[in-house]
Amino acid sequence: MVDHQVRYFEDYAEGVAVDCGEVMFDEASMIAFAKEYDPQPFHTDPVTAAEGPYGGLIASGWHTAASLMRLLVENYLSAESSLGSPGIENLHWYAPVRPGDTLSVRVTVLSARSSRSKPDRGIVTSLIEAVNQNDTKVLDLTATNFVLTRPS
Amino acid sequence: MVDHQVRYFEDYAEGVAVDCGEVMFDEASMIAFAKEYDPQPFHTDPVTAAEGPYGGLIASGWHTAASLMRLLVENYLSAESSLGSPGIENLHWYAPVRPGDTLSVRVTVLSARSSRSKPDRGIVTSLIEAVNQNDTKVLDLTATNFVLTRPS
Repeated sequence: MVDHQVRYFEDYAEGVAVDCGEVMFDEASMIAFAKEYDPQPFHTDPVTAAEGPYGGLIASGWHTAASLMRLLVENYLSAESSLGSPGIENLHWYAPVRPGDTLSVRVTVLSARSSRSKPDRGIVTSLIEAVNQNDTKVLDLTATNFVLTRPS
Repeated sequence: MVDHQVRYFEDYAEGVAVDCGEVMFDEASMIAFAKEYDPQPFHTDPVTAAEGPYGGLIASGWHTAASLMRLLVENYLSAESSLGSPGIENLHWYAPVRPGDTLSVRVTVLSARSSRSKPDRGIVTSLIEAVNQNDTKVLDLTATNFVLTRPS
């Protein structure tokens, strides 16, 4: 596959898979995100979290998802062609993310079809999967993206 | 419905709806979030964004979703009973969120059932809907949450 900086719709063929690298979660970032966006005790307070349902602090699922998005922007999507997303399906948080965990992210093109109404673009659906350092599946989701075709 | 701070599974009956208030998006917060988690030009750079597919800066969809989460934590979920979420379905970003937009958020219980394997909790699915100040639908999604039953 061509470098992500110059990818267009034609490059996202069904079955193409891209290793998007890793992201590590440190406790300070987890707490900072959760205080702003998801202030539940098991996301914001290690002491309360230790007595809570997960036996310790875990990342907000939105923090996990947003952190994967950065890897997609840096390794999968292209600023030249990415037109945004109308939505996602089937987002599963399978296992908690704890301080010090490192997630590895892989994305696979599930389908790619040309737009009927707008011939300059196509619609790509992708399976995004994250596993932690113990190879435990942590998250997956299916994303839809609008992508420009290569300029002729 | 009882105050959100003391809600338990029994309080999330099918059809119950809760107005979760409003959240305003300012340009600085939108750019800060996007630089950290979703550094696409139409989320990070007003000048480039003006020439881009949305004709101006728009919020990362992850920023929008995370901002709604805060309203759910403050108005719908209860720290006494919230056990987290195994996932979400059908997240749609219908319309862009631009600087200065204010979203109003409403949540409706779609279903509530007791857990078969763990009698101390139930499984609640909720429809979360956000509209902007022009009453344009911006986002909806279906979330699943694990919630403790009321202590006897």
